[in-house]
Amino acid sequence: MKPNRWRNFALLSLAGFASVTWAQIPGHYNSITDVPGVTVGQTTSADSGATVVLIGGPNGGAGVPTGFVARGGSPGLRETDVLNTVNRNEFVNGVVLTGGSLYGLAATAGVMLCLEGKGLGVSSGGGIVPIVPTSASFDRATCGRPPATRPDLAAGQQACMTAATGAVAQGNVGGGNGAVSGGVKGGIGTASVVLPNGVIVGALVSVNSEGAAYDENGELHAASLGLDNEFEIAAGSSYISEIANFAGSTSRVPLNAAAGPLRTGTSAVVATNVQLTKGQANKVAQMADDGMSRAIRVAHGTGDGDTVFTLATGAVPGDANIDQLGGAAADVLSRAIMRAILNAQSIHVGTCNVVSYCEQFPTHCAVKP
Amino acid sequence: MKPNRWRNFALLSLAGFASVTWAQIPGHYNSITDVPGVTVGQTTSADSGATVVLIGGPNGGAGVPTGFVARGGSPGLRETDVLNTVNRNEFVNGVVLTGGSLYGLAATAGVMLCLEGKGLGVSSGGGIVPIVPTSASFDRATCGRPPATRPDLAAGQQACMTAATGAVAQGNVGGGNGAVSGGVKGGIGTASVVLPNGVIVGALVSVNSEGAAYDENGELHAASLGLDNEFEIAAGSSYISEIANFAGSTSRVPLNAAAGPLRTGTSAVVATNVQLTKGQANKVAQMADDGMSRAIRVAHGTGDGDTVFTLATGAVPGDANIDQLGGAAADVLSRAIMRAILNAQSIHVGTCNVVSYCEQFPTHCAVKP
Repeated sequence: MKPNRWRNFALLSLAGFASVTWAQIPGHYNSITDVPGVTVGQTTSADSGATVVLIGGPNGGAGVPTGFVARGGSPGLRETDVLNTVNRNEFVNGVVLTGGSLYGLAATAGVMLCLEGKGLGVSSGGGIVPIVPTSASFDRATCGRPPATRPDLAAGQQACMTAATGAVAQGNVGGGNGAVSGGVKGGIGTASVVLPNGVIVGALVSVNSEGAAYDENGELHAASLGLDNEFEIAAGSSYISEIANFAGSTSRVPLNAAAGPLRTGTSAVVATNVQLTKGQANKVAQMADDGMSRAIRVAHGTGDGDTVFTLATGAVPGDANIDQLGGAAADVLSRAIMRAILNAQSIHVGTCNVVSYCEQFPTHCAVKP
Repeated sequence: MKPNRWRNFALLSLAGFASVTWAQIPGHYNSITDVPGVTVGQTTSADSGATVVLIGGPNGGAGVPTGFVARGGSPGLRETDVLNTVNRNEFVNGVVLTGGSLYGLAATAGVMLCLEGKGLGVSSGGGIVPIVPTSASFDRATCGRPPATRPDLAAGQQACMTAATGAVAQGNVGGGNGAVSGGVKGGIGTASVVLPNGVIVGALVSVNSEGAAYDENGELHAASLGLDNEFEIAAGSSYISEIANFAGSTSRVPLNAAAGPLRTGTSAVVATNVQLTKGQANKVAQMADDGMSRAIRVAHGTGDGDTVFTLATGAVPGDANIDQLGGAAADVLSRAIMRAILNAQSIHVGTCNVVSYCEQFPTHCAVKP
């Protein structure tokens, strides 16, 4: 793995725009919860689970402006049409990333009841209707059988009730518990960045992908985007021997499994403290999706449900620098994807063996973010 | 109400295309179930409910090609992104039209379990995943309070388990039980048409709309599209006195209620026995939506969740005449909307009074379809 080219003082120049230079540092928890107002809750079952990202807002509990982009060819989504800029509702109360394929969309019913109990949602006809777009992905860490449990109403309620600020568990948890990624174990990852102008961007992702986050040498595609040496390998790496070992085991960790419907789906939430319109939130989601392109190859395939949501709390008012924000969002999403892969744990149960990246390339994980 | 201009022998000329002329008659039940393979199930609670339209297919239970269009400004949908023509999955097992606003999307979880039990869905990873796009609308017949019951998993299961061929209940049932429409009671309506070439098109709609299906004289906007005199008024109509009565009671049946978020949503399913690609099914949905435009004014407003799905069983193979089919689908949807309005029943409970069209204009309903 190459040394970190960016380190603390990342110089980022956006070709075609006025050159933008800023220093990037991770937030306190290097988590989406570094964006004030954002909480995360996760329910983890035997081989599936659900993760919720909730958000307060300046709008009396009605939520915050949200955008999305779904470039995967097998999306499993609910409440996305409302995010189209021609449509009325501007605000969203949170996003659910669930396992269990389309069955897992049932978890959102529980999240809605939980939020209704807190009085969060759109006031409508004497009641409250929480708006909670959801992306479902297909649990593949079960080695060919469906998950024994599916995220349901109760799972969604529990994830919502336990949502909190602070550190977020990564790896085999929540909506990423049953995830795989390019032949190794996938999972939940999160990261954040703080810019000198006070802009904070955080990402949380469930990495469940046909494509891999690493190349034929085992190097993470987007390692160079790390901050504070977070993806550097340890001194005295036995890198070469690991590659040799990997080359001998491709049948165990196939980079490209046989095609099949509704296989996977990398779903992400990007949150920021910047004030955005709904249209801008959709634009930032589109730019943030570049972070998936950089971290996973192949991405956005016909069996992927790849989706990115953006939540904008608006704590930093005024005209947003969309290019700065979209660029930062893409980088933080790439980092969250790598942290998911680095925190995922192997599964060895009977004949079901899903090897983690770190089991395969232990030296790469000596400094584990 | 004008005499039926079309009667049994409708001459329909599509400007800009080769002139198409055909005789139109309703199917045996004048229902979406006249399309072979289509079944309908409905669960009706105190003031809400859910309606499912299910479909077998030539594809081993995997469903049939489906398209959709959502031109309302407040859509409440799930599993629509998958219908985009760039996305992988071609088939759908059914559609749910539910009340209960976004809470009602929970009903789909029950429909999925029911279909899974029947082995219907996409085979994936050792399991079956039914694909059931859903549109939710906001129950407004509760006079300002939320519905006492919301369609949930059990409601969806029940609707699916009881789905059947044959006559379909209209009016205050299923997903239309809590519906209103332009100041009168809305509800479920269905209609069908059979063309001489063997093409059958059926529509089922839950009419819940800000706009009205009738004009300032109480006349149904799309009455002229009726077949077999289905929307003719009785001989000896007291039409004039009804109009006078109506003019005096606009405060009771306001044509335009105050704006508010997530108010309404007219959701429809159009089914046909024609073979369509997914792209063609999307095109037919777009054309069918014209039937909503003709039957309801104003339609597609910012508070409406207006959505049309198309299901194509493919029993009639070969190149489809999309213009004939889209034109017929629009007409049958207009007729289903009128039949919903004509079959809806008044609600008079305490201070909650939602007058039906037929209570308001009894002569117009003397011949009730």
